[in-house]
Amino acid sequence: MSPLLQLPVLQADLGRIEDELVASVQANDDFLTEVASHLIRAGGKRVRPALALASAGARQPLLASASSEVVLGAVSVELVHLGSLYHDDVMDDAEMRRTVESVNARWGNLKAILAGDYLLAKASEIAASLGTEVAGLLASTIARLCEGQVLELQHTFDAGRTEQSYLTSITGKTASLLGTSCRVGGIVGGLARDDIDRLTAFGINYGMAFQIVDDVLDVVATDEQLGKPAGHDLVEGVYTLPVLRTLVDDAAGADKLRRILGGPLAEGELDVARDIVRSNGSVDAALATAETYARTAQESVAEFGDGEAVQAMTAATDHLLGSVAAIAR
Amino acid sequence: MSPLLQLPVLQADLGRIEDELVASVQANDDFLTEVASHLIRAGGKRVRPALALASAGARQPLLASASSEVVLGAVSVELVHLGSLYHDDVMDDAEMRRTVESVNARWGNLKAILAGDYLLAKASEIAASLGTEVAGLLASTIARLCEGQVLELQHTFDAGRTEQSYLTSITGKTASLLGTSCRVGGIVGGLARDDIDRLTAFGINYGMAFQIVDDVLDVVATDEQLGKPAGHDLVEGVYTLPVLRTLVDDAAGADKLRRILGGPLAEGELDVARDIVRSNGSVDAALATAETYARTAQESVAEFGDGEAVQAMTAATDHLLGSVAAIAR
Repeated sequence: MSPLLQLPVLQADLGRIEDELVASVQANDDFLTEVASHLIRAGGKRVRPALALASAGARQPLLASASSEVVLGAVSVELVHLGSLYHDDVMDDAEMRRTVESVNARWGNLKAILAGDYLLAKASEIAASLGTEVAGLLASTIARLCEGQVLELQHTFDAGRTEQSYLTSITGKTASLLGTSCRVGGIVGGLARDDIDRLTAFGINYGMAFQIVDDVLDVVATDEQLGKPAGHDLVEGVYTLPVLRTLVDDAAGADKLRRILGGPLAEGELDVARDIVRSNGSVDAALATAETYARTAQESVAEFGDGEAVQAMTAATDHLLGSVAAIAR
Repeated sequence: MSPLLQLPVLQADLGRIEDELVASVQANDDFLTEVASHLIRAGGKRVRPALALASAGARQPLLASASSEVVLGAVSVELVHLGSLYHDDVMDDAEMRRTVESVNARWGNLKAILAGDYLLAKASEIAASLGTEVAGLLASTIARLCEGQVLELQHTFDAGRTEQSYLTSITGKTASLLGTSCRVGGIVGGLARDDIDRLTAFGINYGMAFQIVDDVLDVVATDEQLGKPAGHDLVEGVYTLPVLRTLVDDAAGADKLRRILGGPLAEGELDVARDIVRSNGSVDAALATAETYARTAQESVAEFGDGEAVQAMTAATDHLLGSVAAIAR
């Protein structure tokens, strides 16, 4: 488990967040309440709320229990994440999410779209209660999520996708919300402006590392290690950093890979594609890029000294890289 | 044309709103900008912005040009409307919207869902710039839209749908946003609290009348009069007020109608169903209900005296009822 999530105070506050998440989606209609709380009940690591809580306490030597406003801020970023998952699953036609049936598989696309909208609206409602800065920040972050995802969609099955396009896309679809999670924690926690900017930089860079590691795992890990089918990105035509590095850096493998990519994979081609990417140093190169982001994240909060929350945030970035390095070996 | 839309000042301000709508959806990505502005470019009556502008000037003897903040408030409610249309069209699998191809038909469901999310996020971002009250109001209105639509979905093809369920559903899916349009105008326009509540009541009751009239037209009007296939609601299993009145009030027709409803219509059954509903006084009964809402709307703003904007709002409710009464005859 990430060192961040092991802090006892944070564990306790995450319990409060579960309660507030459930309370936040109580609709006038019992059925909508059930659909909207489906993925909340399915659990999750709550990385975004944890970052908000830790950021709010970044200047405390020992992390104290969060104020109710900070808890609400943490809830609002998780609701954005959950709402976007509802819409992602409709778009991917996913049948499972975490260990449960997806909302669209259980209740159909129509209700999944509406319930996703409802979760995003509830996130915005809570954000509004925390002031115009948080409200504006959350709204612009949702817009950036959409931008990142649209950019990714435009380049599905595009073997000419550039590394820059990839990085812009994951900035929008992943890093921006992690940065906002930290920023909301900092704002609601009443930290100084400079500190809020530092925490935001931590979240964005941590988010970049997080997504690259996730993308590398999709190439190198087994179905068992992931708990879901590996190679999903290649099947869906989403060519991520290790794949793009192969296409650019490794001329021989690149030609072979290019013949396979560009459209849906035929039987057996997924294994061939993964073997090519794994065998030429592209995975290490992608991990090196992730490590650079992780180091930048750590440097962003170096100024905070050795408070408990920041120590754990720093350790969490090492943990992230360590876990994938172990699998890659 | 509605008397509200004929006010020269309002016409001029609606031009500013078109410009702001286009500006508001400029994304970092040209493609997303194109998708997000598709329905803006298709035009529309802009009823919601018009209500916001009129409400902001409800205490002015002669309606003056709106402040830039009021224009932004009017833009935010139209963006909510547009975003919800993107998702509606995905859910209905619609091919056309107004006179143009729907977003989903042109670019697919995935991009239509994301662009709808993007429009809702942009609405929230603008609302946040207008203060926490407007931001919270807009977010809670989006949540109510979802509630109203989910309730409608739960009762598709349900011949036992109650009138109360119908009214609750249209309150959420239509009246709440029209009420919020007036309320945002009143808040941003700096009106007194009592006046803001009166304007909100106008919008909600006008919205109820508006939706009932729309639902009656679907039963009584021809394809040519509507500019789209009539009877759409019956085909989709959405049983609206005139239909529900038939099922309750007209025992003979009710039995015949109940045998047809409850599932997809067979060849020729749409005409039979529409004939039954049109022939038994249910249309007049539904129109009487719409008229009651329209009168309540008018009474809500009677207090304002004879300022230009409020006079036009009052006339707009009469116009709404007049147009359908003419068709029904």
